Amino acid sequence: MDSEKEPDLSEIRALLQRMPPADKAAAEAVAAREAQLTKPAGSLGRLEELAAWLAAWQGRPRPRLEHPRIAVFVGNHGVVAQGISAYPQAVTGQMMQTFLDGKAAINQLAALQEADLRVYEMALEQPTADFTQGPALSEADCARAMAYGMMAVEGGFDVLALGEMGIGNTTAAAALSLALFGGEAADWVGRGTGLDEAGLARKTAVVQRAVETNQAALPDPLAVLCALGGHELAAITGAVIASRLAHIPVVLDGYACTAAAAVLHAIEPGLLDHCVVAHRSAEPGHGPLLEAIGKDPLLDLGMRLGEASGAALSLSLLKAACACHDGMATFAEAGVSGPEGG
Amino acid sequence: MDSEKEPDLSEIRALLQRMPPADKAAAEAVAAREAQLTKPAGSLGRLEELAAWLAAWQGRPRPRLEHPRIAVFVGNHGVVAQGISAYPQAVTGQMMQTFLDGKAAINQLAALQEADLRVYEMALEQPTADFTQGPALSEADCARAMAYGMMAVEGGFDVLALGEMGIGNTTAAAALSLALFGGEAADWVGRGTGLDEAGLARKTAVVQRAVETNQAALPDPLAVLCALGGHELAAITGAVIASRLAHIPVVLDGYACTAAAAVLHAIEPGLLDHCVVAHRSAEPGHGPLLEAIGKDPLLDLGMRLGEASGAALSLSLLKAACACHDGMATFAEAGVSGPEGG
Repeated sequence: MDSEKEPDLSEIRALLQRMPPADKAAAEAVAAREAQLTKPAGSLGRLEELAAWLAAWQGRPRPRLEHPRIAVFVGNHGVVAQGISAYPQAVTGQMMQTFLDGKAAINQLAALQEADLRVYEMALEQPTADFTQGPALSEADCARAMAYGMMAVEGGFDVLALGEMGIGNTTAAAALSLALFGGEAADWVGRGTGLDEAGLARKTAVVQRAVETNQAALPDPLAVLCALGGHELAAITGAVIASRLAHIPVVLDGYACTAAAAVLHAIEPGLLDHCVVAHRSAEPGHGPLLEAIGKDPLLDLGMRLGEASGAALSLSLLKAACACHDGMATFAEAGVSGPEGG
Repeated sequence: MDSEKEPDLSEIRALLQRMPPADKAAAEAVAAREAQLTKPAGSLGRLEELAAWLAAWQGRPRPRLEHPRIAVFVGNHGVVAQGISAYPQAVTGQMMQTFLDGKAAINQLAALQEADLRVYEMALEQPTADFTQGPALSEADCARAMAYGMMAVEGGFDVLALGEMGIGNTTAAAALSLALFGGEAADWVGRGTGLDEAGLARKTAVVQRAVETNQAALPDPLAVLCALGGHELAAITGAVIASRLAHIPVVLDGYACTAAAAVLHAIEPGLLDHCVVAHRSAEPGHGPLLEAIGKDPLLDLGMRLGEASGAALSLSLLKAACACHDGMATFAEAGVSGPEGG
């Protein structure tokens, strides 16, 4: 690539100024049909909301979920030098191979949903810089990672489920969350893949130090992403942006994935309106992060694996929402009486 | 049927004395394999629990969910004479027809799960007696309904998902819950298909009166089922019993379905060990009922439709649990490093 073609954060900032809105007519068409289906009003709960949300962001009056894509971004983090993970950095690459072999959890979950699974390896041999010493990524590297994530978004898919793998990235997620939303480092830190007490204390101090070191970035969420994110996290942020442009609703996975998307919320909350969060991770920072971005997750099953595992699982709920909305009879079609006096 | 072949509650009481226990060896086999799969310990949360639970109650070391059956029992309730439902009684039969036409929510959800859906119409032209005046069902009628439910349980299915339809049956569920677990009528009563304030007050008074009228039944949970249940609810109780005998794990749907099963919990809590509750219904009595029987539901999506809709939806989680447990590589197979120092 020559330098004139290098991606640039200013281009991404410009893109964020022209994000398309929801298709209100599609959402209204869903609501009108919903009211006529043979069930008490509102009795399918969030499935009804999901049908309307899908329609609004797919831009069609009958939402569909026939072709889901799952994108998992994989990256390495320099901060592992600080001893913040229970597993060695080599596991990132080993898990990448397990994805390619079809033997990880996400492979099984994607197959069950008949989803198109893509796993994107992001320069594992070049981890980000240790962000306790300075920014994790230069602006150019961060923009390049975002652009890479944007390329994972293609037309023809009804929904994009996003996830990540990267030893050390719950530390990055905690640092991003602390930088974006404040509070104490301890509010955002958890055991990740399985830290002991001493490891947890070390990780908390590392997160605190990371944010102090990168104080200059705090006023600008995209600068925060450069300073405290990672390749796979910036790719997720990029994929969320590109999905909005492509009219593809997004399903976010757990803590690290949500933290990457939350950068956009910090810029402007409406930038995540085309996203749902699949599940509440058992990683303790996810709860406050969901509260900070005002998202109520679909599932709460004590999962904390990443790999888009929760996002994949939640696709069954989106499919159910579409199936009910599409296949049910109306009261008139079925000859079923309405409420008495109604 | 001649009278010698009439079903009898005493036979059911005898059955309850010889319920098979869980297969501990199968559960241990799952736990041993789980610990070797390429993920941090416990990171699949409740999916791991579900795999072990399915194995324990299917009695095989590798749990399977390839052939789910969904059974929906449909009955009418004399208590509708008290004006406790927003919809007329005729809707029960109309919805029965909609099930047969494949146009209700459960038809769509069953198809999505490739489940064998059976809908059992239970003498809709002969509703139960109005239980504000006396018992809803005689002992013989209740035993017959239970036996009918037991017949819905056949070998060859990996799991049985149970549900119901019957105008008026959230009133029965509330009366059963009050009789079995105490508290105030108002704790157990909700708007059902959509009552207004006056209707809700009327329903609360009806539930209170129902339990007072049938005070004599209270010491005996099966007598409570006769007095305050209904055909479709007694069938569910029967199906839960027969599933245990057939080594088929059970997925319970919402409030009415859980109330029917809770009769067995009141006899002996372990009688529901082979059951999970699919979801927390938006009907407000379901929360305290789940607490009373010590079950944590899998989903919480604000649904309150019945028809086994929540149970059907949760089958995707059970399938995911089996797929991950079965298809993932072990650390050794994948050549993935374990925790550092571990």
